[in-house]
Amino acid sequence: MIRIGILGAKGYTAGELMRILAGHPRARLACLMARVEAPEPVAKYFPALRGIVALPIEPVDLSALAARCDAVFLALPHTTAQEYAPALIEKNVRPIDLSADFRFDSVELYEATYKVTHLAPQLNARIPYALPELFRAEIAGAPGLAIPGCYTTTSILALAPFMTRGEALDLDRIVINALSGVSGAGRSPTETTHFPECNESVAAYGVARHRHRPEIEEKLGRLAGRPIRLVFTPHLIPMNRGILVTCTIPMKRPVTIAEAHGWVREFYAGEPFVRVLPEGEVPATGAVALTNFCDIGVVADPHAAALVVISAADNLVKGASGQAVQAMNALFGLPETMGLLAANESD
Amino acid sequence: MIRIGILGAKGYTAGELMRILAGHPRARLACLMARVEAPEPVAKYFPALRGIVALPIEPVDLSALAARCDAVFLALPHTTAQEYAPALIEKNVRPIDLSADFRFDSVELYEATYKVTHLAPQLNARIPYALPELFRAEIAGAPGLAIPGCYTTTSILALAPFMTRGEALDLDRIVINALSGVSGAGRSPTETTHFPECNESVAAYGVARHRHRPEIEEKLGRLAGRPIRLVFTPHLIPMNRGILVTCTIPMKRPVTIAEAHGWVREFYAGEPFVRVLPEGEVPATGAVALTNFCDIGVVADPHAAALVVISAADNLVKGASGQAVQAMNALFGLPETMGLLAANESD
Amino acid sequence: MIRIGILGAKGYTAGELMRILAGHPRARLACLMARVEAPEPVAKYFPALRGIVALPIEPVDLSALAARCDAVFLALPHTTAQEYAPALIEKNVRPIDLSADFRFDSVELYEATYKVTHLAPQLNARIPYALPELFRAEIAGAPGLAIPGCYTTTSILALAPFMTRGEALDLDRIVINALSGVSGAGRSPTETTHFPECNESVAAYGVARHRHRPEIEEKLGRLAGRPIRLVFTPHLIPMNRGILVTCTIPMKRPVTIAEAHGWVREFYAGEPFVRVLPEGEVPATGAVALTNFCDIGVVADPHAAALVVISAADNLVKGASGQAVQAMNALFGLPETMGLLAANESD
Amino acid sequence: MIRIGILGAKGYTAGELMRILAGHPRARLACLMARVEAPEPVAKYFPALRGIVALPIEPVDLSALAARCDAVFLALPHTTAQEYAPALIEKNVRPIDLSADFRFDSVELYEATYKVTHLAPQLNARIPYALPELFRAEIAGAPGLAIPGCYTTTSILALAPFMTRGEALDLDRIVINALSGVSGAGRSPTETTHFPECNESVAAYGVARHRHRPEIEEKLGRLAGRPIRLVFTPHLIPMNRGILVTCTIPMKRPVTIAEAHGWVREFYAGEPFVRVLPEGEVPATGAVALTNFCDIGVVADPHAAALVVISAADNLVKGASGQAVQAMNALFGLPETMGLLAANESD
Repeated sequence: MIRIGILGAKGYTAGELMRILAGHPRARLACLMARVEAPEPVAKYFPALRGIVALPIEPVDLSALAARCDAVFLALPHTTAQEYAPALIEKNVRPIDLSADFRFDSVELYEATYKVTHLAPQLNARIPYALPELFRAEIAGAPGLAIPGCYTTTSILALAPFMTRGEALDLDRIVINALSGVSGAGRSPTETTHFPECNESVAAYGVARHRHRPEIEEKLGRLAGRPIRLVFTPHLIPMNRGILVTCTIPMKRPVTIAEAHGWVREFYAGEPFVRVLPEGEVPATGAVALTNFCDIGVVADPHAAALVVISAADNLVKGASGQAVQAMNALFGLPETMGLLAANESD
Repeated sequence: MIRIGILGAKGYTAGELMRILAGHPRARLACLMARVEAPEPVAKYFPALRGIVALPIEPVDLSALAARCDAVFLALPHTTAQEYAPALIEKNVRPIDLSADFRFDSVELYEATYKVTHLAPQLNARIPYALPELFRAEIAGAPGLAIPGCYTTTSILALAPFMTRGEALDLDRIVINALSGVSGAGRSPTETTHFPECNESVAAYGVARHRHRPEIEEKLGRLAGRPIRLVFTPHLIPMNRGILVTCTIPMKRPVTIAEAHGWVREFYAGEPFVRVLPEGEVPATGAVALTNFCDIGVVADPHAAALVVISAADNLVKGASGQAVQAMNALFGLPETMGLLAANESD
Repeated sequence: MIRIGILGAKGYTAGELMRILAGHPRARLACLMARVEAPEPVAKYFPALRGIVALPIEPVDLSALAARCDAVFLALPHTTAQEYAPALIEKNVRPIDLSADFRFDSVELYEATYKVTHLAPQLNARIPYALPELFRAEIAGAPGLAIPGCYTTTSILALAPFMTRGEALDLDRIVINALSGVSGAGRSPTETTHFPECNESVAAYGVARHRHRPEIEEKLGRLAGRPIRLVFTPHLIPMNRGILVTCTIPMKRPVTIAEAHGWVREFYAGEPFVRVLPEGEVPATGAVALTNFCDIGVVADPHAAALVVISAADNLVKGASGQAVQAMNALFGLPETMGLLAANESD
Repeated sequence: MIRIGILGAKGYTAGELMRILAGHPRARLACLMARVEAPEPVAKYFPALRGIVALPIEPVDLSALAARCDAVFLALPHTTAQEYAPALIEKNVRPIDLSADFRFDSVELYEATYKVTHLAPQLNARIPYALPELFRAEIAGAPGLAIPGCYTTTSILALAPFMTRGEALDLDRIVINALSGVSGAGRSPTETTHFPECNESVAAYGVARHRHRPEIEEKLGRLAGRPIRLVFTPHLIPMNRGILVTCTIPMKRPVTIAEAHGWVREFYAGEPFVRVLPEGEVPATGAVALTNFCDIGVVADPHAAALVVISAADNLVKGASGQAVQAMNALFGLPETMGLLAANESD
């Protein structure tokens, strides 16, 4: 059994990790830590886990954590995780970081985006960007993992199959409109996430300055072999879970739905967690809720000479904790689906 | 007092007309008709209007309707309103049509879009497209009015100020992503609008083939003096009311936020129902709920060389019944704000 | 024109007062004050009121407030309003207090319930409990008013008609189950009102110890002429607005629906804001949203020998700001419906 | 492996059965049938199950069904299931009926409640009411099972521990207020479940005449050894899943929270799916969503001399399909938790 620790155990992604790992046949929760004064029951923060998770949430103690775990999920705010990852690696424990701290190839871009100095730039190159569908080869055996987040995963998976189609598509005019459920904003109450403020209302936010855009552009650029700049407009939607990403890619020459759909189908052939919908069908977030799936639909618009590619995922699962477990499986040489698809399903 | 009739009195836009007109100082409800077997109380269909509207909803009788009204709101399905408008005009009653039947300049485009033969093509040219902010001059004294709908109003108002800026902006690569509350789908229950299906989920629909796109393109084309083709992707959002339209317009040359914002501010100077937000602010549908306002925000994205223009409206008010009353006011020579802004507000 | 001030101008009830008073023909907003460092535009806190309310929100200055107003709405937390009311009265300004501070007949009960010492006990008896339907006679000309809140108004209006029916009903075994929308919890974000916590979930709270129970019991006791003790269980519901109160009253002898309905109908005959539904019909909060109505329905349950009485109101209107305006009208000798029903409606 | 069939495979409880059984280690889906013209993919009705369930939904063919299954879940409307159960038993297949058709001890009460003639009254007594926590002994080896529904399960579990406490509690004055998410109304769109009608609104329905009351009363009466009559008022709440039941039981003598809590704790000692909350805590439906748990909280109200007992469950899991799988496990001699708690959890 892989012994698992979670640092930052009071947040939503931590709770989701506990829910998933409670059913994992080869991993077990060994240590939960967070900013608490004294040990507290998990049910205080996650009433749903009453009777499921017996471990308490303890005050942070890095030595104790390292002694009891083989891998530690860092469910911490951006810019905080980098304080812990190096020490864990030193103690031979694998950090699996759900923050943005090790996601960038370019330390400079990270520092410009998050407005901090990177504390472990030398380590950054050794920690792969753990989006298994695209960068699987780098995961197994790595000293630690950087787990992509919800907007980035859903956007990158939608657009990746087209990054080598520059002869047919205008990769300089991509527009992403993204819709996110409110749990994507985290667990701390704010005016924006106060129920009467966000219920029965929608609005965009972070327009032209959201910090996930640079990450999306960097990874797509890696796939395209050229710089990518795109418009990224996120919106807050009155629902708990779910990310829907609607991408528009102008055509340079007529592209049929059959051709475009074929590109995507082929690109994701054999992937257990990407469901390419039939031609012309589009995904709904409700259909991926509480699963590790990313559903992708493609529509061709000959009238306006564009492709519309839409992807849906659960922001807390494929957009965070599910993906982290999928990557952990790959890291430790287990089937990626373990603990993420029911026993019968993964037959 | 203008005597008002409503045909199709059981639907959401009809209920909204009643709510608004109950407080209108110069119009009064005179006749409500719909497909009913016998007269029924309004409260059966609109419990909120119990004690507010005393008139019953009666079976349709065109002669009685015409005898009792000066103007009749047609709150009918597309392709149905055209059956009634000519007869009403003949009897000297003004039809104010909330359907799409007289919205198109081109009868051919209407017929291609709605897959029917237009029953009154000769009348079509005499019934103006009653979007007062853009086409005010044609409204006063017209024999009837075609009221723009929610997606079209909100989209056209967002983009109109830029239609003459072709030197700076690429008008051939406009992308509209639209988010609609569920009341926009009308009152008939369907699988799509069944609560457990659309709550806690978002999805696009009608991608690349929504019938409001041709209408938007035609009107913007009129403003631009050239054909406009654009991508239009509507989404269904789990809330009752509200339309949010996010438009992306690529730049051909650098355009600052100050410049773009100035265009919009100037374009709508003095308009009582368009609120241009301060530079960089973006609208929320919650802030226009139950009002006739359309809020517009502009953001410049120099990184991706695009403008992002976002507008918000209440689909049942500025996107339907409020706009219809605003246009009715203009038709009868009353201040456009009458009955739509509280007494003190319109001082 | 009555010159109106609002103290505590950043909260939900204040915003609702502004929305209502913007359309009031005989009152005008003269001064808005709250805990701000410097004057701020109303639209910062209430984007919906952009262009509707021109006054800024200013730092609190009691002298300036008194100089500019005839009446001041105290939209302040419980236990805070009592600090301001006496000073305003001294300066000949009428405080209209939306908090609980002057709602109790018994100062002792107030102090026990809110765990504070009352600062103006001598004033308490002079400020009537301004629930016009029940205690109208005490309002006109009072030095100030105590406005009942949402749970109390909706509960008391439902039960009042039965308080003299002790021969038929068991007034010692009344059970109230109340459902409240989240705006009832106020504007300060908390863990409980964080969207992902309260959306898609319901729970009771304050069971057996909610501080509105003593107020309900005191007022019903006044009507009954004997002490009333009842069970009051409030629940938080994932919606913005609305209170639904379901009351169960055991029968001591068989009571028919006709008899019970007649009691209620007669009790509220002529009341403009209480809509007694037809026999057997029950109210929905959606039908009273954004109105000052309280809808009441009665059902007889002969099988279990009980009456079920259900009432619905908008917690921010009839449960707060609408009721406050209704009471203000009565205080100043205006028709109670002024500004609360559209012009045509109040004909 | 137990071979499982589902009849009525297009409804919500059927989809939930598929979701649960896809992960069951000892059962496998063998046959899905419903009113379809030709075989259709499951994903057409349950997009979430795309790639999870490979079987098609076939037209109903009872012989084929019986030949391929050991047990068949009847996910059919009330009064329809009784047409199929006898034939299945005759062919040696176990019907597990989620409808009300075999839930009543008294055939007369069933017929009076559902206004039909029971088609298999002789079979009725042989099919136990499969609420394992209360009637476990009757399940193993039965020819078929009647699965309690959501209101009944949640209500009965809350009240059962008190049925033998008649010396302390007034069992003649029990009041149940129940709140249900909209999926409890089934999958067929109706005006009531149309999103804009039930979102942002709450209302009671079926007051004093809901057909689940007789079932609750009959089972509680069995436990109490005397007739039980109670008030049952269900409400529709704008959320997808969840049942919250708030029960008020008057005291005949003072009962402390410690005493009442002890009764409940002891009553459910060792039950894997009933979580008795700590003294004074009350449950939320969000904490049991997508689980087979029923959470129960108890509060004593000495002021009003009553106990308030609140229970929460997921209407589609413990209130339907999860309970059906729990009962199936018991029927076939498997651990009740199999497939319902994750592997690690059930260790």
